[in-house]
Amino acid sequence: MKNSARPIGIFDSGLGGLTVFKALRALLPAENLVYFGDTARVPYGTKSPAAVIAFSREIAGFLLKKKIKLLVVACNTASSLALEEIRKVSRVPVLGVIAPGVEAALKAAPSGGVVLVIGTSATVNSRAYSRALAAAGARVKVLEKACPLFVPLVEEGWCSKPVAAMIAREYLAPFRKKKVDALILGCTHYPLLKNIIARVMGPGTRIVDSARVTAADARAELERRGLLNGGGKGRSEFIVSDAPERFSGLALKLLGIKTGKVAVKRF
Amino acid sequence: MKNSARPIGIFDSGLGGLTVFKALRALLPAENLVYFGDTARVPYGTKSPAAVIAFSREIAGFLLKKKIKLLVVACNTASSLALEEIRKVSRVPVLGVIAPGVEAALKAAPSGGVVLVIGTSATVNSRAYSRALAAAGARVKVLEKACPLFVPLVEEGWCSKPVAAMIAREYLAPFRKKKVDALILGCTHYPLLKNIIARVMGPGTRIVDSARVTAADARAELERRGLLNGGGKGRSEFIVSDAPERFSGLALKLLGIKTGKVAVKRF
Repeated sequence: MKNSARPIGIFDSGLGGLTVFKALRALLPAENLVYFGDTARVPYGTKSPAAVIAFSREIAGFLLKKKIKLLVVACNTASSLALEEIRKVSRVPVLGVIAPGVEAALKAAPSGGVVLVIGTSATVNSRAYSRALAAAGARVKVLEKACPLFVPLVEEGWCSKPVAAMIAREYLAPFRKKKVDALILGCTHYPLLKNIIARVMGPGTRIVDSARVTAADARAELERRGLLNGGGKGRSEFIVSDAPERFSGLALKLLGIKTGKVAVKRF
Repeated sequence: MKNSARPIGIFDSGLGGLTVFKALRALLPAENLVYFGDTARVPYGTKSPAAVIAFSREIAGFLLKKKIKLLVVACNTASSLALEEIRKVSRVPVLGVIAPGVEAALKAAPSGGVVLVIGTSATVNSRAYSRALAAAGARVKVLEKACPLFVPLVEEGWCSKPVAAMIAREYLAPFRKKKVDALILGCTHYPLLKNIIARVMGPGTRIVDSARVTAADARAELERRGLLNGGGKGRSEFIVSDAPERFSGLALKLLGIKTGKVAVKRF
């Protein structure tokens, strides 16, 4: 297989990473994409660093055997806790979603401004965003808030029910008075709740979604290495560790993605 | 070790089974109890039968090596999908939570009455309660409803927030007009939402919690086999597959259980 024809590997704990898949598919229509969702062990956000690292290494190993040319870790929890460990075992470049989120937030928040990061408990406890913002030299105040019910809410398909707004208010209303300039959606499920979150925060807060920036980063990385695939329509392949029909149904319902047959790989 | 001094093994996908642990501890203070929570793979309720069976067999094997005298499957999803498979590998008696729930519901619902079973998607899809009620010769109409957000809601510790009542109404209000005589809490997390569920259903519905009946069944089984432990205070041991501090904190917060040090066993 020509190097550039090799697929891009993408993985997430479940289906949240499909928001990144969708951005990649839109930006890079000629690329072959292989997506892995760890639906047997989802969610990662309430689990320990040791567990998330062990799961991530297993999945990276599996995707590397599929001769991928680039690995996108489309899960904030895995990006926060396991990116360095994955890079140790990968012979291809590995991109996470934290750096793109930080890049986008810095465009949205002025120097001296306030950035609020929301994510799973594991992502927030890791303080990966705070560290990345500091490392990027950002002169902003960083607040972080875990919102553990958002993932199950999305997985239930209740993104536009009144109860979604109530949960969002419960988590986020206390931050309204803190003059938040940019809110980072630090979980790939959260873009599906973007409108509700924006309403709670009010018009003064820019909502930052890392999916599009991640896709742009992936294109830049491939371009730099001369690995962009030529014209034509790329293939999409989906693999999960459990319950493929459920994954397929939710991908269509929540994101309008037609997966076709989803394969199963158990660990 | 004397046969009667051997511990009772209890397992659940996470911490919901602690409601059964608590009932066992109250009824059988002299017994040694060993509890396993599969916190690395929780929740089970959205996973496939194949995954739940594989996880359950692994855990049963682990507890059997601890020389247990009785195994209590304190998880409705595992009881619904994996009880027969666990019995195949177990040399000690295995009790689930479905039969006790059915037993209690039949006392609460008159012949010709209506029983509503609520549980995880996996439990409801298995139709284990409908089948068990039919096998018990129950002349009742059985309704079933999956309530996937209840488990994460309990795990977030939001059992008495207004949002809990709103979610309960969303799932259960349509059943108010169906004249439900008994509602089976078909998930070991749900007793923690009992008051809220009772308020939505109104005074005409008896809420059935299988924890106490399960404990009574366990005592009867041990009595029958001459395996009840003599006086003294039994030991309690807790093991999880991930995040022991989190488990310990929630056990105290939600159920007032002081676990002491929680061990970790990864699969």
